[in-house]
Amino acid sequence: MHIGFLGLGNMGGPMAANLIKAGHQLSVFDLSQAAIDSVVALGATAFTSPQALAQAAPEVLITMLPAAAHVKSVYLGNDGLLAQLAKATHLIDCSTIDPHSAREVAKAAQAAGHSMIDAPVSGGTTGAAAGTLTFMVGGSQAEFDFVQPILSAMGKNIVHCGDSGNGQVAKVANNMLLGISMIGVAEAMALGTALGMDAKVLAGIINTSSGRCWSSEINNPYPDVLENAPASRGYSGGFGSDLMLKDLGLATEAARLSKQPVMLGAAAQQLYQAFSLQGHGRLDFSAIIKLYLKE
Amino acid sequence: MHIGFLGLGNMGGPMAANLIKAGHQLSVFDLSQAAIDSVVALGATAFTSPQALAQAAPEVLITMLPAAAHVKSVYLGNDGLLAQLAKATHLIDCSTIDPHSAREVAKAAQAAGHSMIDAPVSGGTTGAAAGTLTFMVGGSQAEFDFVQPILSAMGKNIVHCGDSGNGQVAKVANNMLLGISMIGVAEAMALGTALGMDAKVLAGIINTSSGRCWSSEINNPYPDVLENAPASRGYSGGFGSDLMLKDLGLATEAARLSKQPVMLGAAAQQLYQAFSLQGHGRLDFSAIIKLYLKE
Amino acid sequence: MHIGFLGLGNMGGPMAANLIKAGHQLSVFDLSQAAIDSVVALGATAFTSPQALAQAAPEVLITMLPAAAHVKSVYLGNDGLLAQLAKATHLIDCSTIDPHSAREVAKAAQAAGHSMIDAPVSGGTTGAAAGTLTFMVGGSQAEFDFVQPILSAMGKNIVHCGDSGNGQVAKVANNMLLGISMIGVAEAMALGTALGMDAKVLAGIINTSSGRCWSSEINNPYPDVLENAPASRGYSGGFGSDLMLKDLGLATEAARLSKQPVMLGAAAQQLYQAFSLQGHGRLDFSAIIKLYLKE
Amino acid sequence: MHIGFLGLGNMGGPMAANLIKAGHQLSVFDLSQAAIDSVVALGATAFTSPQALAQAAPEVLITMLPAAAHVKSVYLGNDGLLAQLAKATHLIDCSTIDPHSAREVAKAAQAAGHSMIDAPVSGGTTGAAAGTLTFMVGGSQAEFDFVQPILSAMGKNIVHCGDSGNGQVAKVANNMLLGISMIGVAEAMALGTALGMDAKVLAGIINTSSGRCWSSEINNPYPDVLENAPASRGYSGGFGSDLMLKDLGLATEAARLSKQPVMLGAAAQQLYQAFSLQGHGRLDFSAIIKLYLKE
Repeated sequence: MHIGFLGLGNMGGPMAANLIKAGHQLSVFDLSQAAIDSVVALGATAFTSPQALAQAAPEVLITMLPAAAHVKSVYLGNDGLLAQLAKATHLIDCSTIDPHSAREVAKAAQAAGHSMIDAPVSGGTTGAAAGTLTFMVGGSQAEFDFVQPILSAMGKNIVHCGDSGNGQVAKVANNMLLGISMIGVAEAMALGTALGMDAKVLAGIINTSSGRCWSSEINNPYPDVLENAPASRGYSGGFGSDLMLKDLGLATEAARLSKQPVMLGAAAQQLYQAFSLQGHGRLDFSAIIKLYLKE
Repeated sequence: MHIGFLGLGNMGGPMAANLIKAGHQLSVFDLSQAAIDSVVALGATAFTSPQALAQAAPEVLITMLPAAAHVKSVYLGNDGLLAQLAKATHLIDCSTIDPHSAREVAKAAQAAGHSMIDAPVSGGTTGAAAGTLTFMVGGSQAEFDFVQPILSAMGKNIVHCGDSGNGQVAKVANNMLLGISMIGVAEAMALGTALGMDAKVLAGIINTSSGRCWSSEINNPYPDVLENAPASRGYSGGFGSDLMLKDLGLATEAARLSKQPVMLGAAAQQLYQAFSLQGHGRLDFSAIIKLYLKE
Repeated sequence: MHIGFLGLGNMGGPMAANLIKAGHQLSVFDLSQAAIDSVVALGATAFTSPQALAQAAPEVLITMLPAAAHVKSVYLGNDGLLAQLAKATHLIDCSTIDPHSAREVAKAAQAAGHSMIDAPVSGGTTGAAAGTLTFMVGGSQAEFDFVQPILSAMGKNIVHCGDSGNGQVAKVANNMLLGISMIGVAEAMALGTALGMDAKVLAGIINTSSGRCWSSEINNPYPDVLENAPASRGYSGGFGSDLMLKDLGLATEAARLSKQPVMLGAAAQQLYQAFSLQGHGRLDFSAIIKLYLKE
Repeated sequence: MHIGFLGLGNMGGPMAANLIKAGHQLSVFDLSQAAIDSVVALGATAFTSPQALAQAAPEVLITMLPAAAHVKSVYLGNDGLLAQLAKATHLIDCSTIDPHSAREVAKAAQAAGHSMIDAPVSGGTTGAAAGTLTFMVGGSQAEFDFVQPILSAMGKNIVHCGDSGNGQVAKVANNMLLGISMIGVAEAMALGTALGMDAKVLAGIINTSSGRCWSSEINNPYPDVLENAPASRGYSGGFGSDLMLKDLGLATEAARLSKQPVMLGAAAQQLYQAFSLQGHGRLDFSAIIKLYLKE
């Protein structure tokens, strides 16, 4: 299938590579020549602008961009993809943005004769490279059925979350909860050890009790509790604190627009913001426990 | 074995009953005659005061009391059990109290020639009746080995958490995390559904993603997501909001004494306090989602 | 002077009326015919669109709109005022919006050959009618000097806050602090009275101590402490809770964009959001004390 | 008048000195010999134990102790002052403790035939030396009338807050609000300056607007806004962060016991706890702004 791909960064690059490996014909664009070169080396065709790529008339167009502003700028307006695409196209936005923006763009896409789904991912750069991402898809059942085989070349869990925007809703809701529970685990581990417990014993009890969660079992923030967790290698790798901060910002903004209180979600956002201010934004998000441990 | 038992309430009553069933000889005391009668009917011997019971010289003495003030009042002072017990006794305090108080009493016990462990439980009244409680035990290895067969008559998980007080530490740390993650799930479910997602679909995604936790999988607070959860029966039964509030109070107090910040733990305590002020303290603690749903 | 005025709502209407009283020639537009009629009756000339008004070439143009989206939509784009104004114009935006948007529009205005200041107000509908508003002005010194006499027809404090956007910064920072201190007063009054103190005695002590603030002295949230405060008339009138919620949203959004943590500011926003969800958004913002008092 | 005085620390020492200057006969006790020596040099008589002092039969006895545990330990029990005092005595506890403990001790005092008031102070060591403290007094009108002239030798504002314990209530409520508004000012100043405003201009606007409070006007946390504030001398002097932390702990504990939520009060406590963990506990409490400023 002829697939256009815009946004060949840390995530988009390996995702495009997996599509090529799966036999698809890729037309690509990115602002970075180095990013373009690396997928052209695998067989992709490069274009000099989104508009030029749009004129090449791919059947499917995938975008993987940093924020809602980029997504809107790429799709909307006279120079935007919606207006420039040579024919009705299946659009897949894999960017993580707020649900309201996702729905706004999808509505404009439909008005312009295209079909569009939102399909944000989880799994990080490791999952992107391995082709094991989870895709949370918002859009019609028909469109979900159409894109599923394509997404399967890049991920292993392709989940239909309901109508347009619901992929973003699922991601934002899950990641807000993830941020909250990570801080909760950090507080519980820091408190328990300050009160004299062994960290591994405490983690073991929590993991067999009602406090258990992904953050305690898979990514425990206390050093040396889990051999392979970022906490045991100086919090390198993993899902960066500033990415968690971004997602918490999306969550509180979505909450504001839908008039929903998110008391702990907002507190989590502020704690990650304070942590980032201290210069720790590039560490794995489990490093937030540093706020609770004496240096 | 001759076992003394003080505190025959909703938890202590069925626990004492299970000890009798296991063949132990029980000497009991409670302020409520009805509570005494029900275990005497099963074969226990009643005493008219803790002091009288202490003079009967049980080998083991178990206490199950509402708060640290009661525990201190029963054990300490001239009239306290530590002074009144006829001989060196194995003391087991199953009350949920703050770790500092637990350690203070255990130290006094040791000074008076007794041995003492803290062994708070989880599992609720259902677990107490069924003999399936979890005991989190703080004390020496030797003492843990001694009490394990006794506790096994009342529970199925008997976990050694380390030295004196660590049983309370484990409980307080776990339950603080539990309160935080329950509110986190409530916020995520309320936000996601307000943004248009189906509650069951959202719960399904969370439960296979990084947001998953006991509160989303086993006690999801959104109505009708889990057939057998309190949320699907008007939040009756389960672990009451006011009990969660008590445990969060123990956690923040233990944090204060150990000079540890617990930002989300304190926020969770305040939210449960606000919820209790609205008159909802007797509902299952998952009912906290009511703070986030429009009536 | 020939002044254009867009946005004749609860605030804009009386502000325009005061400009007419001061002898200015007003050209006006609003979506509501009733709003237009009431200022036309005072001598204003009505136009059927912002573009038509722009073609009438006022020397000064004032906008008073609900949110940043309206401001951007009115000023920017091919049909926007910046493009449509018949000559270089002094632009005054009195809307309360986030500083980043204010600066974006002001920069576009300058690029189009106009000069623009942001001048959000405080003082409410009472101050708008009485001509006693406070204007917080962001823009160059020259432009401030030019607009001061005009603003003085509508307000009594015209404060220069620095360069473009700083009027919005001042408003957003002040109102975030206001929201925090109002909740602080509510918590202190509710706690003190729950512990047995007389509300007036407590307010008197706070107001002569280090806890004193505008919210305790001028708008004390406890009923009947201040005879003329909204709290003593069922929280009617005053500055609505939903307006405070809007300003707290602007503050946390500005904080997010400038990577600043605002822990209590975010908590205040969430508490007002929870209060609004309970249906109290139209009450004076001091009514937030209802979250703390037993019904 | 013959006055006993226990607790001659940073506060108690100068307070006792002022009583001597006012012509009273002082009998004193402290655990520190140096503290005793300095008031003996001024004319006080030293005793070797609280009990010995009690046998000297002062008409009035003043205590100034670090925490509720010390107050209870000094007054209650067989060796306590209530039992040991040679005659009915006017007791004045100037310690800052929680209201519930204050009332418990006052009740015991009354049962033992004494009269007791709680009279915590504000004004710091500077006020203690200058004799300009504020006393917040809880007790009967008759007892207030009796102690007022004595307290006037040590302070200039002697405020009757109502019945027993209300002095502590007033202090705890005021200081909780103080902690909240200080953090609020810190967030507003940090946000406004991050967004480009001059700190002095911003402070000037807040101080003439609805955000104004003691913390913005008298102890502004931003460096060099107020020449004489701790913020302009490296946060030395003033009211220490760890003392604010202690008072916030008393407030949240009093709130817990009276079943009152204090959402921002608890958040303020946790922020001061986090700040203390970073090693800043001895700085003036306005230094909390360091959490919000990039190093």
